[in-house]
Amino acid sequence: MQTTNADIAIIMGSQSDWETMRHAAETLDNLDISYEARIISAHRTPDRLVAFAREAKDAGFKAIIAGAGGAAHLPGMTAAMTILPVFGVPVQSQALSGQDSLLSIVQMPAGIPVGTLAIGKAGAINAALLSAAMMAVFDEELADRLAQWRDVQTHSVAEFPIDEA
Amino acid sequence: MQTTNADIAIIMGSQSDWETMRHAAETLDNLDISYEARIISAHRTPDRLVAFAREAKDAGFKAIIAGAGGAAHLPGMTAAMTILPVFGVPVQSQALSGQDSLLSIVQMPAGIPVGTLAIGKAGAINAALLSAAMMAVFDEELADRLAQWRDVQTHSVAEFPIDEA
Amino acid sequence: MQTTNADIAIIMGSQSDWETMRHAAETLDNLDISYEARIISAHRTPDRLVAFAREAKDAGFKAIIAGAGGAAHLPGMTAAMTILPVFGVPVQSQALSGQDSLLSIVQMPAGIPVGTLAIGKAGAINAALLSAAMMAVFDEELADRLAQWRDVQTHSVAEFPIDEA
Amino acid sequence: MQTTNADIAIIMGSQSDWETMRHAAETLDNLDISYEARIISAHRTPDRLVAFAREAKDAGFKAIIAGAGGAAHLPGMTAAMTILPVFGVPVQSQALSGQDSLLSIVQMPAGIPVGTLAIGKAGAINAALLSAAMMAVFDEELADRLAQWRDVQTHSVAEFPIDEA
Amino acid sequence: MQTTNADIAIIMGSQSDWETMRHAAETLDNLDISYEARIISAHRTPDRLVAFAREAKDAGFKAIIAGAGGAAHLPGMTAAMTILPVFGVPVQSQALSGQDSLLSIVQMPAGIPVGTLAIGKAGAINAALLSAAMMAVFDEELADRLAQWRDVQTHSVAEFPIDEA
Amino acid sequence: MQTTNADIAIIMGSQSDWETMRHAAETLDNLDISYEARIISAHRTPDRLVAFAREAKDAGFKAIIAGAGGAAHLPGMTAAMTILPVFGVPVQSQALSGQDSLLSIVQMPAGIPVGTLAIGKAGAINAALLSAAMMAVFDEELADRLAQWRDVQTHSVAEFPIDEA
Amino acid sequence: MQTTNADIAIIMGSQSDWETMRHAAETLDNLDISYEARIISAHRTPDRLVAFAREAKDAGFKAIIAGAGGAAHLPGMTAAMTILPVFGVPVQSQALSGQDSLLSIVQMPAGIPVGTLAIGKAGAINAALLSAAMMAVFDEELADRLAQWRDVQTHSVAEFPIDEA
Amino acid sequence: MQTTNADIAIIMGSQSDWETMRHAAETLDNLDISYEARIISAHRTPDRLVAFAREAKDAGFKAIIAGAGGAAHLPGMTAAMTILPVFGVPVQSQALSGQDSLLSIVQMPAGIPVGTLAIGKAGAINAALLSAAMMAVFDEELADRLAQWRDVQTHSVAEFPIDEA
Repeated sequence: MQTTNADIAIIMGSQSDWETMRHAAETLDNLDISYEARIISAHRTPDRLVAFAREAKDAGFKAIIAGAGGAAHLPGMTAAMTILPVFGVPVQSQALSGQDSLLSIVQMPAGIPVGTLAIGKAGAINAALLSAAMMAVFDEELADRLAQWRDVQTHSVAEFPIDEA
Repeated sequence: MQTTNADIAIIMGSQSDWETMRHAAETLDNLDISYEARIISAHRTPDRLVAFAREAKDAGFKAIIAGAGGAAHLPGMTAAMTILPVFGVPVQSQALSGQDSLLSIVQMPAGIPVGTLAIGKAGAINAALLSAAMMAVFDEELADRLAQWRDVQTHSVAEFPIDEA
Repeated sequence: MQTTNADIAIIMGSQSDWETMRHAAETLDNLDISYEARIISAHRTPDRLVAFAREAKDAGFKAIIAGAGGAAHLPGMTAAMTILPVFGVPVQSQALSGQDSLLSIVQMPAGIPVGTLAIGKAGAINAALLSAAMMAVFDEELADRLAQWRDVQTHSVAEFPIDEA
Repeated sequence: MQTTNADIAIIMGSQSDWETMRHAAETLDNLDISYEARIISAHRTPDRLVAFAREAKDAGFKAIIAGAGGAAHLPGMTAAMTILPVFGVPVQSQALSGQDSLLSIVQMPAGIPVGTLAIGKAGAINAALLSAAMMAVFDEELADRLAQWRDVQTHSVAEFPIDEA
Repeated sequence: MQTTNADIAIIMGSQSDWETMRHAAETLDNLDISYEARIISAHRTPDRLVAFAREAKDAGFKAIIAGAGGAAHLPGMTAAMTILPVFGVPVQSQALSGQDSLLSIVQMPAGIPVGTLAIGKAGAINAALLSAAMMAVFDEELADRLAQWRDVQTHSVAEFPIDEA
Repeated sequence: MQTTNADIAIIMGSQSDWETMRHAAETLDNLDISYEARIISAHRTPDRLVAFAREAKDAGFKAIIAGAGGAAHLPGMTAAMTILPVFGVPVQSQALSGQDSLLSIVQMPAGIPVGTLAIGKAGAINAALLSAAMMAVFDEELADRLAQWRDVQTHSVAEFPIDEA
Repeated sequence: MQTTNADIAIIMGSQSDWETMRHAAETLDNLDISYEARIISAHRTPDRLVAFAREAKDAGFKAIIAGAGGAAHLPGMTAAMTILPVFGVPVQSQALSGQDSLLSIVQMPAGIPVGTLAIGKAGAINAALLSAAMMAVFDEELADRLAQWRDVQTHSVAEFPIDEA
Repeated sequence: MQTTNADIAIIMGSQSDWETMRHAAETLDNLDISYEARIISAHRTPDRLVAFAREAKDAGFKAIIAGAGGAAHLPGMTAAMTILPVFGVPVQSQALSGQDSLLSIVQMPAGIPVGTLAIGKAGAINAALLSAAMMAVFDEELADRLAQWRDVQTHSVAEFPIDEA
């Protein structure tokens, strides 16, 4: 893996997870944060996982957003092989609605942390925002952009509900 | 709130959460990261919460670790009032073993992220490690200490199980 | 917030919750109880929440109906900042069908009560009825209207099921 | 049932529930609110239930706190036979830790509300506080006492956690 | 309630439950067992419930099949007021898929039994079959019909799966 | 298997289930109903299961009470091989507190009913009472005994809770 | 049952399970492993189950894949009557999404193992793969085919997600 | 890793899992099957995991038994890197009683199978028995030993329960 210019890696277990994870990408776009999105299956491409995780820090990434569903091992196994912060997004699964994804990601043993977000689209957006928050601690310009994004969000909340046809 | 010299704020809903959250403190101690531990109850001391969350960034904190149990609103409400990264620790609750704490913390709506760790002691330790990981991105010395901590951890795993009397 | 002439405040975390919460409004309409419906997001508009909750009693409200989904902090945080009775409605969430909403609302710690109703539309209707029940204790005319409403409900239950095409 | 001078009825399904429900009684004592505590089993003493629920309003009660465990029908069936506000306390059950109690109480159909509190002791305390909150809307002196109780509670929260031997 | 000639009472909380409970009726029809189907809402028509349950034995019923959803109190409250066998059918609920219905029906305290069947249509059919099984103990002709029904069922199971277009 | 003079068979998967199932036996004793208790493991003694279930009706049993834990197949498999009524008792399991036992017993497919009682001791007692209720439909003397048992139970419920040291 | 030339038996509780289980068949086809698919209902055709399970080893099968839903007893009861390896596939059920199927299959008591796969289609595919893995230990040609299948799978994972219209 | 003479590898995430996994070892001992037990933490020793899994087949193992708790990634990640059959044992976890372990192990995506056993000790014993069953397909002597073990088990089940002091 060559040095990348992207700050954030967005990885996911399969193409089908992109429907969820693209919301992380869009949110990073909105905040002018660079990223690279890749498919890495912990189970079907373990070598790719090892290569990626071992070299992610040297490649210049500042954080890794990892989304997976079911017995979701991608976030935790990535975290096991890097000291970069890893944020996990439980993708909603078919039978169990993401309860399996959530527990597989969040219940990591002491020693290897994965900062876990909500199941599905909200979690993907928030993984991007948390990455931004982390970088903003050390980047005042980004902090300003993030604060502004939050202000816009606050002001977008209408005062009164309206009936929709 | 005056400027603090601590990098990390550890907040919790009550004295009883300290039994869990002190493991975050001990882990930060091991990594030579400064912190301040405070009791802030979202429900019983909402003013304290607002004051803390609004001023946490200016006070110099780089991340907030928030632990709470049951209908655990502390991590999410803190995140609502700061752009600092917030890491949530679901404290194990009496009747529901922390399932309520976990869902109350992790299922945040899009827009306000809380990076959630495992229920209980493991989550507290990992919240500290995730804070360290985040700071280590911008601090090579800390990155070395963290990598070393991880190496020690790896080498502490025995090869073979032993029968214990 | 100016003094209001409404007896009940119906608050909700987002426009999308109105689909559920408008059933509370319709039920209050049926019972000739005045209300005001507002969008207050605990997470996206925390200042609005603080302002509302702190002044709700002086504004003349007699009870607050609060609906929210997922990591639903609106009912509990409102209750933390007022001594008015707060009734919580868990809005059905996408992935977990409102199990997260329910636990986030009902599992409040000792000291700050939220009277919680059922997930979804039934809960919204019942929050209105519980508000009415509370006011009827001190208002014989309303008690009569409520008793009559209940009678109509009782008599609307057919004796025998019918096959529907 | 004769007219009572008590404002609140605390009812429970069995003697064993008193271990939980006495916390409601103690909280009402602290707030100088009168109450009567009675054992009424929906299943073993259905006549007692009907007699109580049908006459509770005329007996002068202003609200009913009902605690039960397992397939907990007491709160809902009481609510079915009175227009008084009913607050339900799910008692922690042996096998399912009160999950059955909670769902049996909170998931009432539209038309018959039960304001449900948390599982166990916290729920019992909060049922008392919610009853107080309801009465305080129409009783300024009680409102002052309740506000004061809340102030004391707020001030009882220490700023810093302490290590306990 | 007059004496009835029906052996089985099928009761349900609302018209909407008939969609499920009519499968009990059809199964009894197939076995030539007489029944009466009635809507009795434990919550909206408690008097109807008391009248029915108290008189069901004298009316000549041999068993009661009771279906309800959500906080389903109909089976248990009926059982509380009769010594007839009561078989409960958890109707699939909207938010929680019948998990609330199941726990509300099956987790009865010692002293008042409800024989609970599966959630939904299968449960309704099986409540009818269990009623038949019970009566067949004392009715050899019915035992033969039931055994025959079971034989037909056994022989209706194909040996090999077939692909369906 | 020879003809038995017992009315009820109590079967269970292992000796350890007797701790739960003996409450069924004691309840039948109290009601002067004869029974036989046997250990039949669906998994470890499938031949014994087949022999028992196939001959239970001819042996003169009127109902079968079957208790098992975990992946509890005993009640359902017994029901598959007899037309006698089968009542299932989910024994509380170690890891999942009987949630596995309950679902394994109650969620039977259409065609083979198992009347399921509560998890644990209460379920065992109620399985005995349900067997009694079933027999009492055809035995007026037993009906009187059962009604009396229920009366005693009703009168044993104290009016007021008492503080216990 | 005559001697069969098939290596694997695929059995399922009903025709409707074929929609899930045919994925096991297709996977075995892909790996050139012979199989026979049969419908065997533990509950509706217990004799067929006993005959099949007792003779499966002599018939020449090397493993049994058993799929069932709800109170799924087929895998466990088959395992009780053969020493062949049994792999269980929890079919997704209507009300509980296969949680009942999963627990009914996986929570077998010590002594009778069922190797359980994931709920639904993925589980069916994996039951076939696990059967193949088992046979491949003793069949180098199959091991090569399986390794190749895995390689193809690995190489089929694209590097980058693509937006789909 | 050198060639081993053991047929089965028993691996586990930590020393504390040995309390559970030693039951697999004892069962293999009883069946005269050779094994090697090792601690391999997917998270703390990922290199050890990769080395082990990649070389397990060449080392001569015939099956791998993998036990882990919480976000249990060891069984699935091992299966991702070998074509040997992998049997997973969910170790009972502290907060969630092994529900997290079970879902993390059993809900594997199509392509990488893990044959999952019950939570805890029963699962460990059964993983050994399933390994034996698999080997017995190709080893008549072992088949005899296994059949005998099963016979002993069957005969160890007493006919009647006994009261224990």
